[in-house]
Amino acid sequence: MSETLTDITAGLSCPVPKFDYDRVLLAHGGGGTLSHQLLSRVIFPLFKNRWLDSEHDGAVLEIDGVRLAFSTDSYVVQPIFFPGGNIGELAVNGTVNDIAMCGATPLFISAGFILEEGFDLESLRKIVESMRIAADRAGVSIVTGDTKVVDRGKGDKIFINTAGIGVLKNGIDISPNRCKIGDQILINGRIADHGVTIMSAREGLTFETTVESDTAPLNDLVSKILDVSNKIHVLRDPTRGGVASALNEIATKAEIGIAIDENSIPMDDQVKGACEILGLDPLYIANEGKLIVFVDSLDAEKVLEAMKSHPLGAESAQIGEVVADHPGRVVMKTQIGSSRIVDMLSGEQLPRIC
Amino acid sequence: MSETLTDITAGLSCPVPKFDYDRVLLAHGGGGTLSHQLLSRVIFPLFKNRWLDSEHDGAVLEIDGVRLAFSTDSYVVQPIFFPGGNIGELAVNGTVNDIAMCGATPLFISAGFILEEGFDLESLRKIVESMRIAADRAGVSIVTGDTKVVDRGKGDKIFINTAGIGVLKNGIDISPNRCKIGDQILINGRIADHGVTIMSAREGLTFETTVESDTAPLNDLVSKILDVSNKIHVLRDPTRGGVASALNEIATKAEIGIAIDENSIPMDDQVKGACEILGLDPLYIANEGKLIVFVDSLDAEKVLEAMKSHPLGAESAQIGEVVADHPGRVVMKTQIGSSRIVDMLSGEQLPRIC
Repeated sequence: MSETLTDITAGLSCPVPKFDYDRVLLAHGGGGTLSHQLLSRVIFPLFKNRWLDSEHDGAVLEIDGVRLAFSTDSYVVQPIFFPGGNIGELAVNGTVNDIAMCGATPLFISAGFILEEGFDLESLRKIVESMRIAADRAGVSIVTGDTKVVDRGKGDKIFINTAGIGVLKNGIDISPNRCKIGDQILINGRIADHGVTIMSAREGLTFETTVESDTAPLNDLVSKILDVSNKIHVLRDPTRGGVASALNEIATKAEIGIAIDENSIPMDDQVKGACEILGLDPLYIANEGKLIVFVDSLDAEKVLEAMKSHPLGAESAQIGEVVADHPGRVVMKTQIGSSRIVDMLSGEQLPRIC
Repeated sequence: MSETLTDITAGLSCPVPKFDYDRVLLAHGGGGTLSHQLLSRVIFPLFKNRWLDSEHDGAVLEIDGVRLAFSTDSYVVQPIFFPGGNIGELAVNGTVNDIAMCGATPLFISAGFILEEGFDLESLRKIVESMRIAADRAGVSIVTGDTKVVDRGKGDKIFINTAGIGVLKNGIDISPNRCKIGDQILINGRIADHGVTIMSAREGLTFETTVESDTAPLNDLVSKILDVSNKIHVLRDPTRGGVASALNEIATKAEIGIAIDENSIPMDDQVKGACEILGLDPLYIANEGKLIVFVDSLDAEKVLEAMKSHPLGAESAQIGEVVADHPGRVVMKTQIGSSRIVDMLSGEQLPRIC
């Protein structure tokens, strides 16, 4: 077998990567610059193929003429129960949303559990029940799964991986490469609720808010958006790393400039206050029920109306546009009228947010 | 939203389960009786749907007329590097095999990493490289993925989840329900190599053997088997819980009796010796490159020949048959000529074997 392996290795272009660090840091999981370094220096060069190159939330595949979207996420959120949801609900909605962001209709979900020895079974039952309810709400079926147990102290109660399969209608092509100057950028409501909720729920960071996680399945909203326009260029859910990281990924991939207006970004007053107290920038805080839409300016108004008429989009807003200036950069007009570059998240605002 | 949730819950039949234990035990992950209890009392009643009811290694789905197999597994093996492989290779081969056991051709794989803060990036690179090599060997592409990081002491270096999609040719129907009296039971070689290797590699259980894990992609072997016979009734890879648990699952699901002959089961002498020293029954020890075939007796000989002519099946053997007696039970004729019931694994032989 060693000959076979050598043969295959010889065919790979696997340069030994240069690391800034030689060990995994929490920030490698934060969705920002270090996450991207880990992917671009370790994972992508070795796994390299045309599906991964698209850097979508999921892969778009074709099998016997049927176009499918396929995506996976692991959930390690801490605490596992929080206002507005729990790790199970999050695990279903998150993968449903990644499939939806490809423009596909999610159909089937897998569930892989890694349980820590000693985790209480009643909590597991509640989490599994939430997953079923979330699946029913999103119209998907959990069709296959796996359960592993690790020794006490080698896990943290429960980690859940979900993978999902969706089907793409003909003609739908959602990709950063379709962005063009003048495209309008829309969002379906208030940002940063999920991240601030997790922070509030964590030991040592409790303060009084009534904010809840925005975890929700976005596939029905996406379906309504695609019904009213065939000029949707990008859909992205700004989870880890928040709106700032999502916009930076798109700006970099599409080599376009993005201009956003701070005043137009919907935000809850309590969330704003919490961010100020904690010195956090809400643009970098995770959302679990929000999507960003890049749409041709011709269709922007009707798409915004369709979003506003959906239960998950009542507070939808136009927050920016694609511009000719500063390709690869996101620039924000601030509340006081100045402009600042909005970079990719560097370091770690909040580990284990999802 | 709470109304929506209540509405949906009301429609579910979710009896509060009775547990023998109120906390997760290591044995809940062992692939034996307690694993089945966890599934049958918590997971299956809540997730209940026709795909899960089939209790296959993966789900067989239909999307727009295309038949797909979909499967997932998380890998938590300890140690992460062992003679014959590592966690990454195992994670690719394991999901490739689960798809192949549905009779499908595996095509696409997802990879979800849960890394512990402090894990060294050079080990990660080696594991990712092994995954690419394993994927190339099996002819599949790793098309989508995810990376999370958990705090030091809340994980164990690296856990990997893979999910996979395969395509099923028309006419292929692999299912325990197709078993009938007289079916011959074949295996593609020596059992228990993987489990004994992991044991040898673990601290405190080292003894001198040259045994290596049998981790291998079985899809090509399955393809050869399906090429020579359309009378293949069941394919199963005896991983966690070993050959004994796999046969028990099939006997229970198909309500058939299974008779096996201890003398006919291929086993390495070193593995046999190690099991005797450690007081372990090799029938319950995990394999990662073996498959059990149930085939109509008319085709048994030609299938066995096809298996023997494959590099992964040189030591293939017929180990038993489906009988009219003792439906739901596996009975073994021992080396000394007596008979004994081979039960499902109860308790835990070896945690974190895969």
